[in-house]
Amino acid sequence: MTELSYSTTLSQTSTVLVERGAASRLGKLVAEQLPAPRQVALITDRNVAPFCQEPVEAALQAAGFETKAFLVPAGEESKSFSMLGNLWDRLVSFGMTRDSAVVALGGGVVGDLAGMGASTLLRGVPVIQVPTSLLAQVDASIGGKTAVNTSAGKNLVGTFWHPTLVVIDPDLLDTLPDDEFRSGLGEVVKYGMIRDASILDRLARFDNLAALREDAETLESLIRDSASIKVGVVAADARESGERAHLNFGHTVGHAIETAESYQGLSHGEAVSVGMVAASFLAVDLGVAPAELPGALTEVLLRFELPVDTPHAPEDLLPHMAHDKKRIGTRSRWVLVPKPGEAILFEDPAEASVIRALQAVYRPTPPVEDSSTES
Amino acid sequence: MTELSYSTTLSQTSTVLVERGAASRLGKLVAEQLPAPRQVALITDRNVAPFCQEPVEAALQAAGFETKAFLVPAGEESKSFSMLGNLWDRLVSFGMTRDSAVVALGGGVVGDLAGMGASTLLRGVPVIQVPTSLLAQVDASIGGKTAVNTSAGKNLVGTFWHPTLVVIDPDLLDTLPDDEFRSGLGEVVKYGMIRDASILDRLARFDNLAALREDAETLESLIRDSASIKVGVVAADARESGERAHLNFGHTVGHAIETAESYQGLSHGEAVSVGMVAASFLAVDLGVAPAELPGALTEVLLRFELPVDTPHAPEDLLPHMAHDKKRIGTRSRWVLVPKPGEAILFEDPAEASVIRALQAVYRPTPPVEDSSTES
Repeated sequence: MTELSYSTTLSQTSTVLVERGAASRLGKLVAEQLPAPRQVALITDRNVAPFCQEPVEAALQAAGFETKAFLVPAGEESKSFSMLGNLWDRLVSFGMTRDSAVVALGGGVVGDLAGMGASTLLRGVPVIQVPTSLLAQVDASIGGKTAVNTSAGKNLVGTFWHPTLVVIDPDLLDTLPDDEFRSGLGEVVKYGMIRDASILDRLARFDNLAALREDAETLESLIRDSASIKVGVVAADARESGERAHLNFGHTVGHAIETAESYQGLSHGEAVSVGMVAASFLAVDLGVAPAELPGALTEVLLRFELPVDTPHAPEDLLPHMAHDKKRIGTRSRWVLVPKPGEAILFEDPAEASVIRALQAVYRPTPPVEDSSTES
Repeated sequence: MTELSYSTTLSQTSTVLVERGAASRLGKLVAEQLPAPRQVALITDRNVAPFCQEPVEAALQAAGFETKAFLVPAGEESKSFSMLGNLWDRLVSFGMTRDSAVVALGGGVVGDLAGMGASTLLRGVPVIQVPTSLLAQVDASIGGKTAVNTSAGKNLVGTFWHPTLVVIDPDLLDTLPDDEFRSGLGEVVKYGMIRDASILDRLARFDNLAALREDAETLESLIRDSASIKVGVVAADARESGERAHLNFGHTVGHAIETAESYQGLSHGEAVSVGMVAASFLAVDLGVAPAELPGALTEVLLRFELPVDTPHAPEDLLPHMAHDKKRIGTRSRWVLVPKPGEAILFEDPAEASVIRALQAVYRPTPPVEDSSTES
């Protein structure tokens, strides 16, 4: 028998910039990574395009790049299998080579789709992320996860493909609707819970979302510190085998809620918000966290109108907690927070404990009163 | 401005086994890589299945794996976008996790499709290649290239995803049709040309294909040495930036012929055969190789009925030589062989030289005689 073997190593370096106004300097920033003239494909969506496409494309052209913009409809349905096929065809027609680049200008959907397209075109072309939602700025744009949805489920197909450059410009959030902003804020709270309690302290200085959004300086600091935590965790664990799992705090129940609602109800950040509260109750039940934890977390979330309970009963959520690609084999693994700023992994908690935690965030919809009794 | 950065490294180790009868021990071999019980999805095609599916599946089950077989039609059309979508859905339905594995049992089409599916399912599950064609045994199964075809072109979409294990069993070739065997032999000759002239010497001991196929020992040695060369080149250059380009000897013109014939004419190995002859004429024209080279190569190829000329005129092939993902920017890069066993890269040869080389392999189809003149 002849036994040969080889090892291969793929190293990717991501630079993450956080700066107000950075998007307007995108041409120069990209030129530091990629020699012009090259083809740069700009992927964006129809909600983002009116605010951002023209200046970004102009900045790229001014730096000498040949650009072409690909607009997709806004929303999750653009992260589809057929859209990916369409994107591949259009990128090839644009004449891209492995020295070209893809710029993803948008939220998580655009970033995931563009990243997946770039990672699989010609077996990999560079991608540059320019996130335009708070959720994408503090989470999705960093860490190289790409995905599309298939009929079998959400995010079950994708790659790890780290962006060459992530340009985070907090000014791009000025036109973001409150609902979307709030979704991103759920993840900011998560970073406070798992790594840096000072984030929670800074949030506690504001009475409501409007007050927070007006303070550009604090906002930039929250984004910077959240992005730093994400970068630190990803650097330590690029393929999600250990520490990176901490980022899933609140996501076990959050995903179950999103699935139970067929992704038509709570936004991702809102679902994670409820999930963090459930995980806090679970930590108390398991004796891992003090009894005050759920209340303290709930206080911060309610301040910004983030949800802390769900109309879905435990028995409706449990079946949706089984199918998770982060599971090791068939075991169930939870991220728990013993105290704000620290996270641990907990394997296979007793089902009774999980059910009690789900019960604690269960708030049944009040029955509709029979109008005939009113008269 | 805050500038953060992180580097990630993905290391993959591939073990390549060459041994007659190895496929029958597949369960044991896989169990050394992957603890049973796990889900193992077996991807194969309808030509291969009658000969190989049952024993391979039984071997996996005997080792404790939960298996499920996915059969695709034989032939290039299975490397399609829609087949990939179908495969994703079926792998998810099988309940695969990142600890499951995909086994590709077949030729290049099955290997490319299964590799692409595995690399993108759950952002990457392990793939084990069990090649059943000579071409796949000496080339496609080693090196982590995966691909599907899209309407924009062949192999323009794919990933680098190195198999955990490659099990090369020369006995699996016993039922391979001569045409397919010949296609693989073109690549074996290529290894002789670019790295190991002793391969050419061994081939010269046989008068024809039938005689070669009867000598199991020599065949195993040719496969082993070809696979070793591929492993060595891949290990030195996993992402094809430098030395790995040597493997493209004969491929510039070969791809042009395949494209000109819409992949309905010569097989890949046959097209590469003509391409190697053209590249040899080019090397002579450029003063890089001695005048005897094309004749010596032609003699080996004709012995096994591999083609050495083409009915396509230079002007028909030139346009198809422009679109190549291995091009750096817009330059043209050729692999040339100064003498058997050595390869070099040559950038941007004069177009006149390229045309003369294409002219040298051009053999116009004789005009069909007017039957009325016969009577």
